[in-house]
Amino acid sequence: MAGSQRMLKRLNRMAIVRHVKARPGLARGELAGLVGLAESTVSVLVGELIEDGWLRQDGSRGTGAVGRRPKALELDSSRLALVGAEVGDDFINAVACGLQGEVLFSRRIDYRHVEQGQSIRDTAALVAEARAAVLAGRRKVLGAGVAVAGMVDTEGFLRLAPSIGWRDVPFGELLAASLAERRAADMPVKVLNDANAAALSEYVFGAGPAVGSLVFLSLGYGVGAGIVLEGGLHVGYDGLAGEVGHTILKVDGALCACGRRGCAETILSQKVISRQATGREAPVLLVSELVALLDQGDATLKQVVREAGEHLGLVLQNLVVTINPEVLILGGPLSRLQGLVDVAVEELQRLTGSLPYHRTEVRVCRFGLNAAAVGAAGSVLHQALHPLAHSIGSGDLAA
Amino acid sequence: MAGSQRMLKRLNRMAIVRHVKARPGLARGELAGLVGLAESTVSVLVGELIEDGWLRQDGSRGTGAVGRRPKALELDSSRLALVGAEVGDDFINAVACGLQGEVLFSRRIDYRHVEQGQSIRDTAALVAEARAAVLAGRRKVLGAGVAVAGMVDTEGFLRLAPSIGWRDVPFGELLAASLAERRAADMPVKVLNDANAAALSEYVFGAGPAVGSLVFLSLGYGVGAGIVLEGGLHVGYDGLAGEVGHTILKVDGALCACGRRGCAETILSQKVISRQATGREAPVLLVSELVALLDQGDATLKQVVREAGEHLGLVLQNLVVTINPEVLILGGPLSRLQGLVDVAVEELQRLTGSLPYHRTEVRVCRFGLNAAAVGAAGSVLHQALHPLAHSIGSGDLAA
Repeated sequence: MAGSQRMLKRLNRMAIVRHVKARPGLARGELAGLVGLAESTVSVLVGELIEDGWLRQDGSRGTGAVGRRPKALELDSSRLALVGAEVGDDFINAVACGLQGEVLFSRRIDYRHVEQGQSIRDTAALVAEARAAVLAGRRKVLGAGVAVAGMVDTEGFLRLAPSIGWRDVPFGELLAASLAERRAADMPVKVLNDANAAALSEYVFGAGPAVGSLVFLSLGYGVGAGIVLEGGLHVGYDGLAGEVGHTILKVDGALCACGRRGCAETILSQKVISRQATGREAPVLLVSELVALLDQGDATLKQVVREAGEHLGLVLQNLVVTINPEVLILGGPLSRLQGLVDVAVEELQRLTGSLPYHRTEVRVCRFGLNAAAVGAAGSVLHQALHPLAHSIGSGDLAA
Repeated sequence: MAGSQRMLKRLNRMAIVRHVKARPGLARGELAGLVGLAESTVSVLVGELIEDGWLRQDGSRGTGAVGRRPKALELDSSRLALVGAEVGDDFINAVACGLQGEVLFSRRIDYRHVEQGQSIRDTAALVAEARAAVLAGRRKVLGAGVAVAGMVDTEGFLRLAPSIGWRDVPFGELLAASLAERRAADMPVKVLNDANAAALSEYVFGAGPAVGSLVFLSLGYGVGAGIVLEGGLHVGYDGLAGEVGHTILKVDGALCACGRRGCAETILSQKVISRQATGREAPVLLVSELVALLDQGDATLKQVVREAGEHLGLVLQNLVVTINPEVLILGGPLSRLQGLVDVAVEELQRLTGSLPYHRTEVRVCRFGLNAAAVGAAGSVLHQALHPLAHSIGSGDLAA
C-alpha cells in the first residue's frame, strides 16, 4: 500500500508538472481543477516541486479581480538538468539541457570509430564532461540519455549499428561501467536509437502548440525515422519501426549494406552523395567537407544533391501515405546540405498534389546537429513525466 | 455533475465488459480488484449488464474451496448484435454478428456501381435486411458500421473512392436517409475505410491472446492497410495512414490511377492481374473468375500471380521496417488467389533474412471475404467498449 501511495503521489506530481509545462502561468487553483485534486493537496505538492527544483512561481499575475493575486507557476529552468549524447557514424556529441531544452553545454568531436571499447570510453568521457559542467553550475542532474545510430532494445542492448559495424553490444552496461570508472555513475543512463531520440527532441521540447504525431527523418550515413504517435515513441514490436532507410524503393536496385537491393539508403545517404561527388568509395567525405564543396560552387555535387533531394521527396511521400503524421521533421547532418530540403519539399508537393486533403507539414529540425543528443536528454524528462507510459493504451486506465 | 456521473458509470460498465471479454470466466470478486471498485458496486453493475444483454453467468465454477462457488461471467452471445457492411469495388456485403464476432447473417452480392444514389440505396437495403434478420432473432442491435473502399473522414464523409470513382460524397448522411426511408434508422451508423474495418475485425474479434499492434493488408482493386497500434486504429492526421497502395515502389514506373508513377497498385492489384492474365484492360475479371482460371491450370495467370506475390512480399517488408507490427494479416479478395500469399511470405522471409530480430508474424485473415463487414460491425463494439478512446494518450488520465 505504501508503494502504491508513493506511486500515486508521483503520478500526481508529474501530472502537475505536465500541466505547467503545457500551459506556463497556471495558478494552483486552476491546477486543482485540471488534475482533479483538492486545492490544498495541490498546494502541498506544488510546494514540494518548487523545493525539488521542478517549478518556480513568478511573482504575481494580474487577474483583474480585487484581492490577493494567484501566483503563476512555470517550469524552473535553473536548478535541474538533463545530459544527452549521440554516438554518430563519424562524430560523438554531448549536451546538457535545462527542463525546457535550453542547451547549457555542448561539445561535438569528429570521430573515426576504430575499437568498440575505445569508442565507449570516449563517449563516457564526453558524458562525464557534460555532467561535470552541469554540477559546476549547481544544478542537479536528472539522468542521461545516449543515442546511437543503430537498433537498440529497451534494455540498452545495441543489436546492430550497421554503419559503425557493431553487432550485439551491451552498450548501456559498458557505458555505465565506463562512467563508474570516472565516478560519474550517479545518474540513470538510458540508451536509445538516434532517430527516436531526435524525434523526442521535437516532441518534448518543441516550440508552439503540442503536435499529436510527428516523424523525424534523420539523414546521414543512414536514413532513419523516429516516430511519435499518440503521446509516445512508436518503436515497433522488435524496435525496427522507422527503419525507412531499408524500405525498398527500387526493385532490383543497387546493393545495400544490409545485403538487399534497392533500399532507400542505396540512393540517399552520406556515402552515396560522397561517392557520386568524388567518384571514389573511400574516404567518405564529412558533411562539413560536403558543405565546403557546395560553398565553392561544385557543380557535380550540386546536381548530386538535387537528385538526392528528389529521392528524399519520394521517401517523404511514402511516409505521408503510410503513417500520415501531423508534422514531418528533417534533420541529421545531410539536412545541412544547401538545397536538399527545398528540393525534397518541392518533390513532395509535386507527388502529393493529386492526393486530396494531405496537410502534413514539413520543416527542418529545431536543434540542428544537436537534435539526437538533446532528444536523448529529453527522453529522460519524458520518462519522468510519464511514469505510466507503458500502461496507457491498455485501456485499463479508463476503468 | 449528473452528466459526469453517468459518464463514470458508463466507463465502469464498459471496463467490466472489457475485462470479461479478455478473460471469460471472471467472478465478481476478481472483477472488483481489476476495475478498482467495491465488490458491492461491481455486483450492481454486473446485474445491470446481465439485464441489458451484455453478460451472462454460466452456472458455477469449481474453485476447490469449500462454500458457495463464485459465478463465472462471460459475454452473452445471444441477445445483442452488431450490423456491418462493406461497399466494395465490385460487390456489396452485409453481415450481422454477435458480441464475439459470430456471423449470424451474411449476404454478399456482386455489384457494378453505375449511379451513386442507387449504390447507396442498394447498400441501405442490405443493411436493413441484416438488421431485420437480427430483430427476427429477438436480438437488440447496438449499431451498424459500413466500410467503404476509400478515404473517409471521422464524420462519415467520403472524400475519395478512386476505384469506384466517387469523390466528396456525404456517404454517412445519405445512407442514414436511405435507411430512414426503410424505417431502419433506429441505430447509429458509422462509416469507415475498408482496410481499417478489416483491421478491427482481427483486433476486436481476434482469436488467441490480444496483440499489441497489427497491420491488415487488404488486397483487391486497391492495396490498403488498416493499422492498429496501442489499442486503437491509427488513421493518421488526414485519415491517409495505411494508403500503402500509393507508396512509390518504382521510380519512373507505370502510371497509376492517382496520377503518379510507380505506386504499389501499379504492380499489384486486381486490375493489373486481370490485364496481365487476359491481355485486355476491360472488363476486369472478378476474383471468382480468376480463381476459376487458376483452378483450370492457366499457366499465364499462375506466373502473373507468382510475380504479384513477389511484389506483395516487398510491400510487406516495407511495412515491417516502417511500422514493425506484431502481426501482419493478409485479406481482401486477392488473398484467395492460390499461391499469392505463400509466395509473398517466402519473399518476405528472403528479404528480411538479413534483418536480425524481426519477429512479425504473417497470417491470412480470420473472416475471409467478410473481414471488412465484420470489422465494420466490430467498430461499433470497439467504440462502445472504449468511450474514452480519444482521451487516452493525452496523458491526462494518468493524473
